[in-house]
Amino acid sequence: MKRTRIKEIFSQKKEMEVYICCWIRTNRAQAQFGFLNVNDGSCLTNLQVVYDSKLSNFEEISKFRVGMALGISGKVVLTPTMKQPLELHATEVTLLGDCPEDYPIQPKRHTREYLRDVAHLRPRTNLFHAVFRIRSVAAMAIHSYFQKNGYVYVHTPLITCADCEGSDQMFKITTLNMENLPKTEEGKVDFSKDLFGKQAFITGSGQLHGETFAMAFSDIYTFGPTFRTENSNTQTHANEFWMIEPEMAFCDLEGLMDIEEEMLKYVIRYVCNECAEEIEFCDQFVEKGLKQKLLDLVNSSFVRISHHDVVDILLKSKQNFEFKPSYTDDIAKEHEKYITDYFNGPVFITNWPKDIKAYYMKLNPDGETVAAVDLVVPHAGELMGGSQREEKLDVLLKRMEECHISKEGMEWYLDTRRYGGCVHSGFGMGFERLIMYLTGIENIRDSIPFPRTPKNCKY
Amino acid sequence: MKRTRIKEIFSQKKEMEVYICCWIRTNRAQAQFGFLNVNDGSCLTNLQVVYDSKLSNFEEISKFRVGMALGISGKVVLTPTMKQPLELHATEVTLLGDCPEDYPIQPKRHTREYLRDVAHLRPRTNLFHAVFRIRSVAAMAIHSYFQKNGYVYVHTPLITCADCEGSDQMFKITTLNMENLPKTEEGKVDFSKDLFGKQAFITGSGQLHGETFAMAFSDIYTFGPTFRTENSNTQTHANEFWMIEPEMAFCDLEGLMDIEEEMLKYVIRYVCNECAEEIEFCDQFVEKGLKQKLLDLVNSSFVRISHHDVVDILLKSKQNFEFKPSYTDDIAKEHEKYITDYFNGPVFITNWPKDIKAYYMKLNPDGETVAAVDLVVPHAGELMGGSQREEKLDVLLKRMEECHISKEGMEWYLDTRRYGGCVHSGFGMGFERLIMYLTGIENIRDSIPFPRTPKNCKY
Repeated sequence: MKRTRIKEIFSQKKEMEVYICCWIRTNRAQAQFGFLNVNDGSCLTNLQVVYDSKLSNFEEISKFRVGMALGISGKVVLTPTMKQPLELHATEVTLLGDCPEDYPIQPKRHTREYLRDVAHLRPRTNLFHAVFRIRSVAAMAIHSYFQKNGYVYVHTPLITCADCEGSDQMFKITTLNMENLPKTEEGKVDFSKDLFGKQAFITGSGQLHGETFAMAFSDIYTFGPTFRTENSNTQTHANEFWMIEPEMAFCDLEGLMDIEEEMLKYVIRYVCNECAEEIEFCDQFVEKGLKQKLLDLVNSSFVRISHHDVVDILLKSKQNFEFKPSYTDDIAKEHEKYITDYFNGPVFITNWPKDIKAYYMKLNPDGETVAAVDLVVPHAGELMGGSQREEKLDVLLKRMEECHISKEGMEWYLDTRRYGGCVHSGFGMGFERLIMYLTGIENIRDSIPFPRTPKNCKY
Repeated sequence: MKRTRIKEIFSQKKEMEVYICCWIRTNRAQAQFGFLNVNDGSCLTNLQVVYDSKLSNFEEISKFRVGMALGISGKVVLTPTMKQPLELHATEVTLLGDCPEDYPIQPKRHTREYLRDVAHLRPRTNLFHAVFRIRSVAAMAIHSYFQKNGYVYVHTPLITCADCEGSDQMFKITTLNMENLPKTEEGKVDFSKDLFGKQAFITGSGQLHGETFAMAFSDIYTFGPTFRTENSNTQTHANEFWMIEPEMAFCDLEGLMDIEEEMLKYVIRYVCNECAEEIEFCDQFVEKGLKQKLLDLVNSSFVRISHHDVVDILLKSKQNFEFKPSYTDDIAKEHEKYITDYFNGPVFITNWPKDIKAYYMKLNPDGETVAAVDLVVPHAGELMGGSQREEKLDVLLKRMEECHISKEGMEWYLDTRRYGGCVHSGFGMGFERLIMYLTGIENIRDSIPFPRTPKNCKY
């Protein structure tokens, strides 16, 4: 008999004969009958299975342990008067995979720290079932938004020899024998002997490559893993994470904000629809008020205000900030919080001082600020960062010089300004930050299947 | 006025006022009027724009060069008697981005070798517009298939310290100063000073991590970049490529083949529907008969035959093969071709000699073969490779020993067999191979935006 998924049983909600494959979450055996709570990963809710002494292996089933894999034939029976809408009356229960008593995932509350230490088993808990399904569906929501709107998904390369972002922040990669590196006559490492004939890195961004494709397709996006070597152990940093980087030709800063707002609302709506059960669970057990927070965001209209005016508000606030707000400095976490509270909703902060932003951002007519925008949202701070790009070759070259960015190996990028270069804009969104926002999870380590952080590369 | 995409104009096919942003593909100026062929990346077909001497900047427009970015206001006029269904009568043409005469992409046929050398500009050609849009849509088709069927998309880590695949095939990554590596007392590189506290690699597969998630969600897939250090310059090898690796619990070899066949047909149908124009183009200019090839595959029923029986057929064939078919050896390209010709369609080759396959594949009762399966298709050879996995811990451990795979650092993987381990199967599909199959493109370098191959890491 063909296997039926538990999700299907709950959604059909009718009497029928089925065969399921699943794992035991709990087993409560009594003298003449017993109850198994089982899960097959297709949905968060466990299915209750009733078995009784008429089964030839009743004694054996009574002793089945948590974690075992089973095949169960039986009849779905509606139970409108009970807590759960239906249950499965077993006619045959077969052991498909054993599980010893020392199984690390027991039916009790484990701490998240403990579960990080068994990251290969934690998706078997309700919490991580919810988080990783939301992660999967959110990824689909992002693809769905961009493809629906005609964007081309571009797989930008991860291996790069361009040193443009500062190689300090990039992992070096090599095929050379590190115990015995070949040397040049000057005694330097001879990277001409390496696979690519020169030193190579894995990259922290696909933006520059993305821009070249936006100059052909108008609207493109990337969605892939990125890497930072940052040696910092915080709740929000990981050395490997996923990022989405859309880039749009003929799009200015205002157009960029329109897209960011529309995309974020689309993704939240999509996830709330497709993962109602998981969002409900997170609302109850991870962040009280999560659903309302998401609903509020979808129904809000995002404020647009310049960095200058934000600093005005902060200075007038008479708050006792740890960091003094300044027209030439970055906005601290505490400022972000004040501003989202002040406007009671998401805020686009635009036109930042050029000295604290990247060289490729469009210089405003004032010569002091750039057409950059950060989106800050209540409870989570910065969710996206983007800018209109400097499309004028001479201005870009001047900015590169000011920022000590070498032109060497960057001619291909500069070509985007030489050949039909036009107004264009793009943004980046850290996918884990989105997942943390969608689930209420506070530590990035709990939003990634197998997190990589300093001194931590298990599995 | 809001920008209209050219794709929208062709699909609405009605008279209307529009404003478009685009790049010039050709400009044919005459005394009193002229024709621009323009493209905005939203679709393959260029839009014909008619401009005449009534425009105040007619002289200027007449001299506009290929590659320039323009903003054009005008009226869409249906032209049922002409080759193209409609054209745009310009009322205003504005230069948005200049382009000099030495623009590398001229309206003539460039060789693919030349275009590889300007990979940042080649998506502006018809060929690469077609290939990279098909790539984008095929990626969406894959996500769509798996998500529709309840699979969870898992972002398995790329950085790994597990040496399980043989570190020779993996890139080493480091944050250490390679010009001055710290050493231990024994004179070895002191990786305890590296970011993860030990030697790290970037991985060639997410399968093992995927298996742990399949033991929670039943059905999962990965889709991400993978890396090989292979120093080989062929048409089918790249050092960075994308791979899809689904893994299904409670699924045996037969079930696996059902899924592979269903998925491939779904993806091909999806791409043929969404990229009709691009497939048509590839059929005409890349691989004659492409459309029919794809149609044939969708309508075929895939043959399932054992490696043993394939060798029987090959031996009986009396063909003069370069490599002699053998019951204990791999199947060569020439054999694959003979077999797909023989059956005139796709063939699943199952139950391979264990000695030429990986340790984690399910040992068959004969003790000599494993439950592996390769899918070979006409014109392209192997498209997917998969297997039922060895779920018995003792057999797996024995196979690891035989294959000299260290257990060290692999306990987490072995846990999948300890705790509720069950029959499960998975496969891998190289995404570029699929793109080559879908487009007829023969060189992997033309299926990836910025290919990485030995001695080649430009951009």
